Amino acid sequence: MSEFDLIRQFFTHPQRHTVLGVGDDAALMQPRPGKVIAVSSDMLVAGRHFFPDTDPYRLGRKTLAVNLSDMAAMGAEPRWVTLSIAIPSANPQWLKPFAQGFFDEAQANDVDWVGGDTTSGPLNMSVTIMGEVSVDQALRRDGAKLGDDIWVSGTIGDAAMGLAVLKNQVRFGSEDQDYCVRRLEQPIARVDLGMQLAGLAHSAIDLSDGLMADLDHILKASGKGADLYFEKLPISAALKNCPYSAQVREVMLGGGDDYELCFTASADSEEAIQKAASYAHTPVTKIGKVVSALGLRVMDANGNQVIVKRSGFDHFAEQLAQQQ
Amino acid sequence: MSEFDLIRQFFTHPQRHTVLGVGDDAALMQPRPGKVIAVSSDMLVAGRHFFPDTDPYRLGRKTLAVNLSDMAAMGAEPRWVTLSIAIPSANPQWLKPFAQGFFDEAQANDVDWVGGDTTSGPLNMSVTIMGEVSVDQALRRDGAKLGDDIWVSGTIGDAAMGLAVLKNQVRFGSEDQDYCVRRLEQPIARVDLGMQLAGLAHSAIDLSDGLMADLDHILKASGKGADLYFEKLPISAALKNCPYSAQVREVMLGGGDDYELCFTASADSEEAIQKAASYAHTPVTKIGKVVSALGLRVMDANGNQVIVKRSGFDHFAEQLAQQQ
Repeated sequence: MSEFDLIRQFFTHPQRHTVLGVGDDAALMQPRPGKVIAVSSDMLVAGRHFFPDTDPYRLGRKTLAVNLSDMAAMGAEPRWVTLSIAIPSANPQWLKPFAQGFFDEAQANDVDWVGGDTTSGPLNMSVTIMGEVSVDQALRRDGAKLGDDIWVSGTIGDAAMGLAVLKNQVRFGSEDQDYCVRRLEQPIARVDLGMQLAGLAHSAIDLSDGLMADLDHILKASGKGADLYFEKLPISAALKNCPYSAQVREVMLGGGDDYELCFTASADSEEAIQKAASYAHTPVTKIGKVVSALGLRVMDANGNQVIVKRSGFDHFAEQLAQQQ
Repeated sequence: MSEFDLIRQFFTHPQRHTVLGVGDDAALMQPRPGKVIAVSSDMLVAGRHFFPDTDPYRLGRKTLAVNLSDMAAMGAEPRWVTLSIAIPSANPQWLKPFAQGFFDEAQANDVDWVGGDTTSGPLNMSVTIMGEVSVDQALRRDGAKLGDDIWVSGTIGDAAMGLAVLKNQVRFGSEDQDYCVRRLEQPIARVDLGMQLAGLAHSAIDLSDGLMADLDHILKASGKGADLYFEKLPISAALKNCPYSAQVREVMLGGGDDYELCFTASADSEEAIQKAASYAHTPVTKIGKVVSALGLRVMDANGNQVIVKRSGFDHFAEQLAQQQ
């Protein structure tokens, strides 16, 4: 196993919320009194969740960022993470920047690495992230209430358009293209916003599969429906400049991998939500209403329903799977 | 992803220490006040950590058991586990018994499944286990003290001999062979013993790589050496009946995958250790002494040093790797 000793040297890191770090049969994490621990796991497979030739530093950051996003969507403060890797051979040219990216992202978010495993095998990264939240403030999917406003952070659709760029399905302004690819490859988890929304929003989810699919999870869990106003959806300058208007509509409603937060909150909370967003330095936009009629309707400016097709702009994972 | 919805149906299970189960962005675990959380991760790859044709029910149980063993080695009470799987195709004939095995093992140990991921990809199982322990009672590797007795639970070497059986390297009495293969494929984590030893033993580790290699981790972490008495090592009836005496010696000292506990404790604690073992219904045997002279010496009945060769009976993982 000596080649994998090499790996371990990339995975040492100062610990801040941890009594005993990696190297024993288990690490020991020190939880804070009065909190519950939010936990979430992800497994990323080369060729399915990312292109095998993705820049390893960016991939390292993204591997953690998409998990931080799950903490954000619970309103939890991320604290600890485990990372296990199977890799065909211990190649330092790949591993070193990957680990650097992962730990830069960990450090930027004050997260301790508390365990993992390294083994030879087809490339696979498995992450378990843990954070803390007060049980009565956690942002669950099943808390949406009738009359809630529906909000989304940042802008949406950029990452899916970035995937289309990488696949040579579209071609437009190079700065705008680059912006979209960055949104895909370097997502920013809305951790501060999630923590600000804890105890304030009624429900939340992060946008990994696309606005409609992910909002639908909230609606189903809460037994509600929603009306969305297409004109209100927050659009980036890059997508505004993009000439493929049908595709833009499609990625904004159905494109995944943006890792923005979608959440619902009482209409009375509008001011508090804006304040929370301002504390978190994260723009938020009101895009619709929770209603009693089940299902999800998207209205245009004239109140007519927008028909959404899913064509070639499906979720990243499905795209890659189809290619194989 | 509809084929993988199939998988999820096998992974539902009642939760006992969990405020919110799987299905949201994260599960919520309720820790007990005054404890720290022990966490450990393992990644198992087909062809490297197990034979691809291993009975899936047994593999499911073992996948959890080897992680429970890490909790035992910390003196922690296992409470929560995440399991992520990559699998080439969602084959219910394999997945159903695998999941059944995993959850039977979870239920038998009162552990909640709190998350995971299912994806298509080369077969890979990734587990993160979490448990609770008082910080001042955790069984670390670096706590061995001069003059400590060295103990081991159960019997050792059986699993490695079981591997030799499966590889047709040895042939002896069929009941004895079967016993050894069972030790390999159906390990029992010494969870109760670990919990009984918490706050009593000075250091502990579980035997996954073999007695000498694993005890060496304790010695290195503690800055001590050890004298072991070969004649005192606990041997099973199956290995006693096995005619390959050189190999028996080798697997007892160097064979992995037994998942017994090796621990050190003050000589004054002998009675308390025996009582703890009796409460845990787990035999324990005193096999040596912690000494100041660094390194690990194995003595025969005449006080002569036993020379241990490593030949074809190495660790399971290395064996399989060599075959590839």
